Amino acid sequence: MPQLDFDIITLGHGGGGLLTNNLLDKAIFELFDNEKLQTRHDGAVLSFKNKVALSTDSFVISPIFFPGGNIGELAVNGTVNDVAMCGAQPKYISLALIIEEGLPVTELWDILVQVKATADKAGVLVVTGDTKVVESGKGDKIFINTTGIGEMHSKAEISTHNIKEGDKIIISGNVATHGIAIMSVRKGLEFETTIESDTCNLNHTIVELLDEFGTDIHLMRDPTRGGVASTFNEIARDIKMGINIHQSNIPIDSRVDSACEILGLDPLYVANEGIFIAFIEASKADDFVRKLNTLEYGSEAAIIGEVVNEHPAKVVLTSNIGGKRVVNMQVGEQLPRIC
Amino acid sequence: MPQLDFDIITLGHGGGGLLTNNLLDKAIFELFDNEKLQTRHDGAVLSFKNKVALSTDSFVISPIFFPGGNIGELAVNGTVNDVAMCGAQPKYISLALIIEEGLPVTELWDILVQVKATADKAGVLVVTGDTKVVESGKGDKIFINTTGIGEMHSKAEISTHNIKEGDKIIISGNVATHGIAIMSVRKGLEFETTIESDTCNLNHTIVELLDEFGTDIHLMRDPTRGGVASTFNEIARDIKMGINIHQSNIPIDSRVDSACEILGLDPLYVANEGIFIAFIEASKADDFVRKLNTLEYGSEAAIIGEVVNEHPAKVVLTSNIGGKRVVNMQVGEQLPRIC
Repeated sequence: MPQLDFDIITLGHGGGGLLTNNLLDKAIFELFDNEKLQTRHDGAVLSFKNKVALSTDSFVISPIFFPGGNIGELAVNGTVNDVAMCGAQPKYISLALIIEEGLPVTELWDILVQVKATADKAGVLVVTGDTKVVESGKGDKIFINTTGIGEMHSKAEISTHNIKEGDKIIISGNVATHGIAIMSVRKGLEFETTIESDTCNLNHTIVELLDEFGTDIHLMRDPTRGGVASTFNEIARDIKMGINIHQSNIPIDSRVDSACEILGLDPLYVANEGIFIAFIEASKADDFVRKLNTLEYGSEAAIIGEVVNEHPAKVVLTSNIGGKRVVNMQVGEQLPRIC
Repeated sequence: MPQLDFDIITLGHGGGGLLTNNLLDKAIFELFDNEKLQTRHDGAVLSFKNKVALSTDSFVISPIFFPGGNIGELAVNGTVNDVAMCGAQPKYISLALIIEEGLPVTELWDILVQVKATADKAGVLVVTGDTKVVESGKGDKIFINTTGIGEMHSKAEISTHNIKEGDKIIISGNVATHGIAIMSVRKGLEFETTIESDTCNLNHTIVELLDEFGTDIHLMRDPTRGGVASTFNEIARDIKMGINIHQSNIPIDSRVDSACEILGLDPLYVANEGIFIAFIEASKADDFVRKLNTLEYGSEAAIIGEVVNEHPAKVVLTSNIGGKRVVNMQVGEQLPRIC
């Protein structure tokens, strides 16, 4: 950690004066050192050969440090994955902090170091940013906004318009892990081993899939807030077709499954981080899963459903015992501030 | 205002489920309707012919409605202007909201309408976004992050590296207006007429200047937090040259000047919004000011200083009565949450 002249963040660190500059010089610019950031202008100048995808997310997760990650890691992965879901390879991100007065500088530093490490792993540069400080009681430790920009993969054609009857629906990994990891720590639940968030950057995996399957990938989406149930409902509504899901095929960690039972939660509504769903040309679905199984974060991937012409705009689940029920969109909020 | 089924924002509106979708469908997507947003994906796909500039800012201003503007207008103008300062014409922005539970929907709607109107005036499209809700007492009504992206002007070469001895320093309008407008309302000060924030979009003005003066514009910067004093200090430090400023040339509204005296504030440290400073090739400075005087928001523009080889990295002010003093960077915070 750099030698800073202060132990906690004060309102002055958001004032644009000497304290802001000290914080930026000694912590942020040094840590994120790169040519684009070095210009120290209000923005970064970038160039792209292809179309780009732009995505933004604010992260307000509580607690800011949790099993398997922290808000800094989540803020990079969340946006990197959203850009990847568009069929683009993320290249640059912005980093905007809203810090509550009183945050220990050590915590800020830990978060920034994780932002940097996660950005490095995803292969993105932090090229511009902003720091604001709000009074104690007007925020909650730290909120982070990241906006990501990436170049479209030349073979990507990701759109709900490409989805058609018979498309297979694939999930890349276990559901509900992130939500239960956060809930466990908030509710003080203990398991034999700690359930850790699966937050990760999916962009390298996505590129390999796009390289091989190109336009046979009709849609990708990361089912974060509202869980897979809400994401499938959004898609079913948009495509005006039906979605069938088979519960027995949905991968879930057995400890997460038990935790859901104890807490009375349906894992389909629990928030996810490190997974994505894909709608794939039926004839390529098995190959897609086989490939995904060999890639980072894809070992649990499975076909879990298909697109049908029946029950338009509705999601129907076949349960483990063979019963069928409509899965609706989440109505309220199971667990606030999950990301 | 659209017919919504709720009067206040609840945690459920940030949950990614039905309430979030209701809010998005009935308010946000309808208001900001455009082809890029219609895809309803997690990001927007954009294409550019030239290099682009990317800039981000979070807005945490309090109060969220103030004389001359509101947080929605500010959030668009602030980012649009940062992109313009890079020498780019802003085209797209993202809009990420962090709402405190309990915000009346009417207030949210008023803000969103202002975002839309301001974006229209600046000629930018809102193409992607995010909505989070935090518990009451963990935020302050609403925080807004906008990230803007724009295409570089073909004649723009904006960089501190281009600044040289003799460059004239121009300011586009009255200093300290925004800060005093906010402070007046917070401190309950009353003047014969209300002092209003000068928040505005400078991008159309900047394009006209770049069209005519191109590479003779060495640097542009909007001196927001920390005031012109802090911005000049940052630049002096970066260029390792001296900056001379002549107080008598700095334009200021007489009511703002009086308010600064009453409040014991130095207007050089008060935050600005609707103005910018420019470092211009000396031989073109008079023409630049004359042109700026004919443009929107430029009627008060004036030459206020120059770059010198003496006192490197320092800003020296010649006062109204001819005395000279070093102007340092703002140390703490005069007025938190000014933007």
